[in-house]
Amino acid sequence: MTRHFLYVIFLFPFLVYAEDGSQLWLRYTPVDESVANKRTIKLRATHDLVQLAQQELQTYWAGQSVVLRLDKKLKRLKEGYVLKGDASNIELVAAEPVGLLYGAYHLLRLQEAGEDTNHLQVEEIPDYDIRILNHWDNLDRTVERGYAGYSLWRWDELPHTLSPRYEQYARANASIGINATVLNNVNASPQILTSDYLVKVKALADIFRKYGIRVYLSANFSSPKVLDGLSDSDPLREEVQDWWKKKVKEIYQHIPDFGGFLVKANSEGQPGPQDYGRTHADGANMLADALKPYGGLVMWRAFVYNPTEEDRAKQAYQEFVPLDGKFRENVIIQIKNGPVDFQPREPFTPLFGAMKNTAQMIEFQITQEYLGFSNHLAYLAPLFKETLDADTYSDGKGNTVARITDGSIWQHKKTAISAVANIGEDANWTGHHFAQANWYAFGRLAWNHQLSSEEIAREWIRTTFTRDADFVKPVQQMMMDSREAVVDYMMPLGLHHIFAFDHHYGPEPWGDRKGGRPDWMPWYYHNADTVGLGFDRTTNGSNAVSQYNEPLRTTFNMIGTCPENLLLWFHHVSWTHRMRSGRTLWDELCVHYDRGVQEVREFQKTWDKLESYVDQQRFNEIQSKLKIQTKDAVWWKDACLLYFQTFSQMPIPYELDRPIHDLEELKKIKLDMKHHN
Amino acid sequence: MTRHFLYVIFLFPFLVYAEDGSQLWLRYTPVDESVANKRTIKLRATHDLVQLAQQELQTYWAGQSVVLRLDKKLKRLKEGYVLKGDASNIELVAAEPVGLLYGAYHLLRLQEAGEDTNHLQVEEIPDYDIRILNHWDNLDRTVERGYAGYSLWRWDELPHTLSPRYEQYARANASIGINATVLNNVNASPQILTSDYLVKVKALADIFRKYGIRVYLSANFSSPKVLDGLSDSDPLREEVQDWWKKKVKEIYQHIPDFGGFLVKANSEGQPGPQDYGRTHADGANMLADALKPYGGLVMWRAFVYNPTEEDRAKQAYQEFVPLDGKFRENVIIQIKNGPVDFQPREPFTPLFGAMKNTAQMIEFQITQEYLGFSNHLAYLAPLFKETLDADTYSDGKGNTVARITDGSIWQHKKTAISAVANIGEDANWTGHHFAQANWYAFGRLAWNHQLSSEEIAREWIRTTFTRDADFVKPVQQMMMDSREAVVDYMMPLGLHHIFAFDHHYGPEPWGDRKGGRPDWMPWYYHNADTVGLGFDRTTNGSNAVSQYNEPLRTTFNMIGTCPENLLLWFHHVSWTHRMRSGRTLWDELCVHYDRGVQEVREFQKTWDKLESYVDQQRFNEIQSKLKIQTKDAVWWKDACLLYFQTFSQMPIPYELDRPIHDLEELKKIKLDMKHHN
Repeated sequence: MTRHFLYVIFLFPFLVYAEDGSQLWLRYTPVDESVANKRTIKLRATHDLVQLAQQELQTYWAGQSVVLRLDKKLKRLKEGYVLKGDASNIELVAAEPVGLLYGAYHLLRLQEAGEDTNHLQVEEIPDYDIRILNHWDNLDRTVERGYAGYSLWRWDELPHTLSPRYEQYARANASIGINATVLNNVNASPQILTSDYLVKVKALADIFRKYGIRVYLSANFSSPKVLDGLSDSDPLREEVQDWWKKKVKEIYQHIPDFGGFLVKANSEGQPGPQDYGRTHADGANMLADALKPYGGLVMWRAFVYNPTEEDRAKQAYQEFVPLDGKFRENVIIQIKNGPVDFQPREPFTPLFGAMKNTAQMIEFQITQEYLGFSNHLAYLAPLFKETLDADTYSDGKGNTVARITDGSIWQHKKTAISAVANIGEDANWTGHHFAQANWYAFGRLAWNHQLSSEEIAREWIRTTFTRDADFVKPVQQMMMDSREAVVDYMMPLGLHHIFAFDHHYGPEPWGDRKGGRPDWMPWYYHNADTVGLGFDRTTNGSNAVSQYNEPLRTTFNMIGTCPENLLLWFHHVSWTHRMRSGRTLWDELCVHYDRGVQEVREFQKTWDKLESYVDQQRFNEIQSKLKIQTKDAVWWKDACLLYFQTFSQMPIPYELDRPIHDLEELKKIKLDMKHHN
Repeated sequence: MTRHFLYVIFLFPFLVYAEDGSQLWLRYTPVDESVANKRTIKLRATHDLVQLAQQELQTYWAGQSVVLRLDKKLKRLKEGYVLKGDASNIELVAAEPVGLLYGAYHLLRLQEAGEDTNHLQVEEIPDYDIRILNHWDNLDRTVERGYAGYSLWRWDELPHTLSPRYEQYARANASIGINATVLNNVNASPQILTSDYLVKVKALADIFRKYGIRVYLSANFSSPKVLDGLSDSDPLREEVQDWWKKKVKEIYQHIPDFGGFLVKANSEGQPGPQDYGRTHADGANMLADALKPYGGLVMWRAFVYNPTEEDRAKQAYQEFVPLDGKFRENVIIQIKNGPVDFQPREPFTPLFGAMKNTAQMIEFQITQEYLGFSNHLAYLAPLFKETLDADTYSDGKGNTVARITDGSIWQHKKTAISAVANIGEDANWTGHHFAQANWYAFGRLAWNHQLSSEEIAREWIRTTFTRDADFVKPVQQMMMDSREAVVDYMMPLGLHHIFAFDHHYGPEPWGDRKGGRPDWMPWYYHNADTVGLGFDRTTNGSNAVSQYNEPLRTTFNMIGTCPENLLLWFHHVSWTHRMRSGRTLWDELCVHYDRGVQEVREFQKTWDKLESYVDQQRFNEIQSKLKIQTKDAVWWKDACLLYFQTFSQMPIPYELDRPIHDLEELKKIKLDMKHHN
């Protein structure tokens, strides 16, 4: 006993100051008893969630007294809350128990960020009903496009052993308003729906529920056939429908607040209703019907494309628009932000706003499949906001993607927003400490898409590192510049998908495979030739511009008006085309690639200067990642410029840093990076 | 026949314009018949060498008529020549036949470099009698510290098959005044002295003789014992002496103008007279006595050091100075330019000028063992001149290493200067096209040590590439800056020998091997600790300064007067010591490493801008090498700064580019670079 006691004494200082990123932005320290005694945290409600809210404040809130009150009449608040108060008392009111929890975290966030808490007059209403993470976690604990270790879900140990990280995960999500999670990969194993696994899922759901988080599952459309030997999984066959009804019933017996299914069907080899000559609507509706009695939803993905002659970027629109109005009320079409696949920059998917009679939700990608994995610092709030703020011009000006999906324009049963998680079992959850900011930013924007990227960054930096303005300001700037830097050194001016085939990490603009799908080859996207570069999606080309509403259609269609940051997305542009800078396309391309490299070198300087503000472990880990990023930026720049130069036959402007690699040597690089688990 | 004829026609343009560097600085084109008919090349002498001179001019000289005349009375010219003439006639006079050949190459050099040849009033006398290359070529055709492919000497084919490159090699040497060559490695195989090999050596000597080049051999001191089973090789035993006399006689039967022996004895494991308790003088004199009847010489290396407590840098001096006056007249002590081993920068070896009664010669290293192999552009004329121009203050001011070794101060039988060759069987001879300039510069300085590095560079650029001033000027500047850039990114401020153990290519300041010789470990040289950096060779330290004459002794001994580019050679300096710039030692170190990197990046820009002036093959090959150099410079900088930072605990100045490597990752790099053949 004595021995243990000593251990505690000696270890305690280290435990307190250990900074491995595992605390995320929740680096609250328990308040002293003396502080706690000066104020009360009173409840005018009873509910597990409310008690949790009280407990969080009781433990960590260092300010004035707080009263938590439930008022079911305030429906307009949804899961939101009202915070009112002065220096001596705060009243926190919500219509739903979870609203009080969110309000408590709001208070703690203000406290940690060093904001004023003595003049509170806050009303917060979430923009989306469902704020959901998609885990692309496989049952063997690998994570498709996961770069932070193996899956958090220890299926082999469940349901009997419960990792403390399950609750930490739920708390972190609750603290930023995330209220739902899809546990398994959209490339779904049917196994997840077996009784054995449902018991495990229930164990997780029971923990998450304490933090107001509902569980969803990715469903494999062939489950009836695979799991129970049905002759097929045709959605119009009664036997199949019955199978799903029974399965859903079983799920709800375990998990009464089960959220529903996420489905990737007839996409990249996944089974789906088209296997039986049925439509996406037929498939989605069958599942929706099974879920309806329990209030469950179907999130049906629109990420579909086939190796046809048709421009891949057009296919989701072509398949789904004709189905508008044919989906059940409890179906939401889940649409990736861009028409191809989570590239560093894409225009928004034109499907947004093109289906007035169908609920739509965005799918973002937090995990950096195409933005340097967990090696590159890329703050994604600006990318998320670029899509959210994009005006679809559906029914006139101002109908942004945000307003279309949040229900402001057209009413649907539920609104939702999703993102593919970047979470794994690494101590710091996300591999790169700064990648935590992307999880954070998604949560905050899902709650309030009006927040600025700068605000979110500042909040995150203050709570995650320090409030010192000498740290916050340069780091905020670095974060704000980071996504554009990645675009610059990877794929500027609208270039896209010139990644290495297997891993989507390094550059491979020369990539080609005999007999491979053209739409999986970089040349399909960049179209480099001796004339120029870029994908002609104008009316003279694939005519993808026609899927956009006016005036976008015309703006994108004309080389003179097309935004230059999307130029090569929509146009095949001559190497000597004069850009707005006065430079040729080739020179401009070089300048962008070089700028990307120089920016990352600046990030290194910024970070190194801040060593004294950060604990050593996180400082070092981030410093190391930035080194990799600089090396990779040069790799990208050299690979792309040297390759495209074989077409342009023009010199890289001589004032720019010269390549340090030879093209032939770069072509030999083969990385075995498929799994980062 | 017709077919072959066509081939010739079609191939001819390519043959003429093919530029793979194989022509070196000898890119003469044969003159048209019409030009040749306008002038005469007359001989007033008969000798093979003179006829060769006539033939070279007949084929390539596009100017006025030339008369070649021998005048044996003009002894003062030695192997030099006088060139006099106007626009219509030139007279070339020499005392020795080879002098006329050198004169002919002088004319052709002027022509190729675009210099005036209409007002000639030239008298050229070589500064050294013997201008000799040392090949570190092994009999298995590997080359110790060779980075341009296998050895030129195809021992297996000799003497019957004679590669055309033997004559090309001889001609290239003659064109820059080199008149001797040691064919085999100083770590000599006894085999070279077997009758089988001597026949092969003779075959080479017969070719080289046509160009005025004498052959020398490295002799293994144990040859009598190894080759003929003598009980030992004790130089004071008559049997041993007789063996050498017989062997020398055999050699001269094959090669009547054989030059003599180069010997590495009792050095780095090589056998020598000390194995029998005899001195270097005993050993050298025995060989000298055997060679004397034939006019042969012994070049006895002073590169000796043992793993004792004594500073390695002091040992050659300690061993050899007591032997002054004890060597035969036909012995020359061959001394490396610096006291350790061909480092990017060393002070001159204090042995120079410390043995008034013994002939001394310099050993330079052309092959870039410690300057980036054939990957880094490092023009070495400034390094050579730094030693040649160094004032030894032996008998007062002005007694430079050059004047001591060229016989200006003390008279000896023969003067000589040597350098370790960088030549291999690569098409361009030296691996890096710019490494040709170092071979060239050595020859030119061996002829005339007053030539400036700039002049030599200009001459070489004009003859090797183009006379266009827009090319010559920036390339000359790049060459002039290049050695200092290497010093900066490898070992600035007097740092030395912190190379990786095996290959001497990459950085390994952390290098250590259990049980290894301390004087082969980087820490032996850099002495980094929490206080500072550098080797204390002052009177408080190893007292190596005492080997230098005043005022050098005092200048080097005091931290305030010691040249900063040798500071860490002579002093252990505190990290916070203020340098002349006002910066601390640590900051200054960082600035130098960074400057080295930036300089190489500038070289890349310089070179890329000049693409239109150079043939594609050489442009590309040099461009590729510069890429490697930039990568390596960053590697060096990061490795050294990150390692030394573990002692200084000071930040790299924040305005400098940040490291892109992690120290632990750099420590893992193991290159298998021992042989570049």
